[in-house]
Amino acid sequence: MDKEGFIDFEQLEKELDDQALLVSVIHGNNEIGAIQDIKRIGKLCKKHNVVFHTDATQSFCKIPLDVNDIHIDMLTMNGHKLHGPKGIGALYIKSGIKIDPLYGGGAHEFRLRPGTHNVPGIVGFAKAVEIQQKDIQKNAKQVKELRDYMVKRLCDEIEECYLNGPQDLSLDKRLPNNINLRFSYIEGESLLFRLSDFGIMASTGSACSSASLKPSHVLLALGLPHEKAHGSLRLTLSKYTTKEEVDYAVEKIKKVVEELREISPLTKR
Amino acid sequence: MDKEGFIDFEQLEKELDDQALLVSVIHGNNEIGAIQDIKRIGKLCKKHNVVFHTDATQSFCKIPLDVNDIHIDMLTMNGHKLHGPKGIGALYIKSGIKIDPLYGGGAHEFRLRPGTHNVPGIVGFAKAVEIQQKDIQKNAKQVKELRDYMVKRLCDEIEECYLNGPQDLSLDKRLPNNINLRFSYIEGESLLFRLSDFGIMASTGSACSSASLKPSHVLLALGLPHEKAHGSLRLTLSKYTTKEEVDYAVEKIKKVVEELREISPLTKR
Repeated sequence: MDKEGFIDFEQLEKELDDQALLVSVIHGNNEIGAIQDIKRIGKLCKKHNVVFHTDATQSFCKIPLDVNDIHIDMLTMNGHKLHGPKGIGALYIKSGIKIDPLYGGGAHEFRLRPGTHNVPGIVGFAKAVEIQQKDIQKNAKQVKELRDYMVKRLCDEIEECYLNGPQDLSLDKRLPNNINLRFSYIEGESLLFRLSDFGIMASTGSACSSASLKPSHVLLALGLPHEKAHGSLRLTLSKYTTKEEVDYAVEKIKKVVEELREISPLTKR
Repeated sequence: MDKEGFIDFEQLEKELDDQALLVSVIHGNNEIGAIQDIKRIGKLCKKHNVVFHTDATQSFCKIPLDVNDIHIDMLTMNGHKLHGPKGIGALYIKSGIKIDPLYGGGAHEFRLRPGTHNVPGIVGFAKAVEIQQKDIQKNAKQVKELRDYMVKRLCDEIEECYLNGPQDLSLDKRLPNNINLRFSYIEGESLLFRLSDFGIMASTGSACSSASLKPSHVLLALGLPHEKAHGSLRLTLSKYTTKEEVDYAVEKIKKVVEELREISPLTKR
């Protein structure tokens, strides 16, 4: 991975030796929004006869994606990242690819996942996909514009505020809804608590590890030192986010960063 | 297991040797409604220092059950068997019992089950439990009375109609909502299709194996020969079932059994 979070293709080619069986790559990274060139990865996997799985949880229905155009053997999606219900996901498996179930039980879902079907989840997920697919281009453009505006304001108006991940904000390089910033001299965790008081929901690192105090492994992989990884803040927008909300959030973030820096033992004075 | 579906305690004691680690028993059987004496099983497990898990999916909120009164280490429940949502379940784990997750990922649910929580499922399940627990005794009695009436009518009015599983219909021997019958000379599958035309939803064997043509392993374990296991029909009632619905179903079952027997190559003539 390079410093912006993109796959190192030289490294990947090296690892695709005779023993390689599977490549699994996140399409759009959940923390820093880096969009991998899965078309190129798919081609490489095909050439080396390696199964290719991509986790498209963050990108599905946010940017266009066609399994007929790209060599993908398996693709993971879920409901709640596209305004569908929580607790439901799906795995696309290309015809001809065989996988083992994770555990035994009934013969449900082609013997791959035992248990009574989550009917409300499935129906809600399908409906959400239908709605989101309709205006995918329009929504991506709208969210990207608002995101770009927010990044610009924050980086212009707060000293030592840096964008983690891809610096190129175009739709094929960075998820349109993703912002990941770091502010020198403060901790992301304190930032979160103060922002939460203002009704602003943000996160440091990944929500999946929110119970842990470890810094984000993604930010560490970019080469950031621990203290910088700890000072990071992830913000995500959606098609429902308004410019007024963004302006409100920017003002509050400015205020909170300033307050925290005043009490920080790390601040240069 | 004996011919009515109850655990053979002599056999169980024999198997609880030094190498036994875990006993897992269905509390109320999903096909024939047999309620195991889990208090006695729990005592035995405790004596032999063996972990005891019970699948209470069918019995939870249908008959009283208290993990403080019975030695149970783990207990499985789910939502849709008690008028809650599909796609949600729960595992009670007694304090002190440690289990490994089935697969890796995020740190959710005490590191036991990765993935974003199914919030609507959890809330709906909890509400359903709250509602069902309130009138558990009253509902059990009401459903049992209607079930007993239905069994009596079917067995009285249809020749060679037999009840599979426990013959004792009391609340501590058979789930109050369960009926499992066999009719000589006909196949359960044909019965299902015809009843479905009349809006009567029934099943042969377990719904979990509905995609398979194998006869129910539970009925085979009772000692029933294949052709008899194949001729079985499972009906389940709920607190919402009315006497009118039961009478309607009885009439239709009588009619369909008669029709199928007329064309059956097996019928004694």
